[in-house]
Amino acid sequence: MYLYNGNRLKIEKKTVNLPNGREMEGIIVHPNNAVAVLPIQDGYCYLIRQYRFAIESYIFEVPAGACEPGEDPLNTAHRELIEETGLAAGRIIPCGYIYTTPGYTTEKIWLYTALDLSPSSAYQMDTDEIIELHRFFIPDVQKMIDSGMIMDAKTICLFHQYMRKNHEPE
Amino acid sequence: MYLYNGNRLKIEKKTVNLPNGREMEGIIVHPNNAVAVLPIQDGYCYLIRQYRFAIESYIFEVPAGACEPGEDPLNTAHRELIEETGLAAGRIIPCGYIYTTPGYTTEKIWLYTALDLSPSSAYQMDTDEIIELHRFFIPDVQKMIDSGMIMDAKTICLFHQYMRKNHEPE
Repeated sequence: MYLYNGNRLKIEKKTVNLPNGREMEGIIVHPNNAVAVLPIQDGYCYLIRQYRFAIESYIFEVPAGACEPGEDPLNTAHRELIEETGLAAGRIIPCGYIYTTPGYTTEKIWLYTALDLSPSSAYQMDTDEIIELHRFFIPDVQKMIDSGMIMDAKTICLFHQYMRKNHEPE
Repeated sequence: MYLYNGNRLKIEKKTVNLPNGREMEGIIVHPNNAVAVLPIQDGYCYLIRQYRFAIESYIFEVPAGACEPGEDPLNTAHRELIEETGLAAGRIIPCGYIYTTPGYTTEKIWLYTALDLSPSSAYQMDTDEIIELHRFFIPDVQKMIDSGMIMDAKTICLFHQYMRKNHEPE
């Protein structure tokens, strides 16, 4: 049974069968799958500072957004990067995925690094989003994570995946 | 207006005032705040392999759980560690916090490292949870993250916070 059935988020109440034979009533939050993209150029990366109404504050994050129904996450990554930063990527490299909160949501976020950036002619800001674009020296992003100035889970996971892959032979 | 008002999760539909003066209708998921705990001993750490009905699979995670109303997250960390692993911690060190998905949920997870571990006499497994305890050499956990075998966001964030702090002078 759906308690809420919106375009981007569905809330389901259902009886869940556990592998141990027990049953329980579970609440499951179904957002669309989503992507997060770390744009990198010349030793710098771009983050956005975005107002998030759920936590009633601005936070630093990588560009990110939900997949449209049926949309390939790689295409979402290209699209969201342009929508949120005005930058188009020549290359987008997959960096795996994360489950944000598997205790109650199906949400999976696909992680990408975006390279070969250039200004996009297709840039048009979504009017429901309040976003500033910022450019940081990569070691400073590590310091912002260490100090707690960046506390967005997808951003921390993706940044560390990038740092790991970037310091190892391909 | 609450679309759902459960013990551990509330779903709210409300008109949100944005800093740019616009209004929009927002869906906000309010779980209780939660903690995640990385138990470390002698160069090894403990992870649990847990069945998560939302994603219908088992995943590796750090021990974690929701704060009871009014509970200090540090106490939640001690309690959840015992409930999920049977281990009591002599010391629990704060490692900041993350927002799991600030696009639609208020959820904040406090991160901790647990040290000086010993078997707890208070151990009693929650019957609604399906959990196995596993012990890994710390470099192997890094490999499990690199390879995508660990894809739980709080686990990845906490492990990296631990690795950063553990390799720097206190």
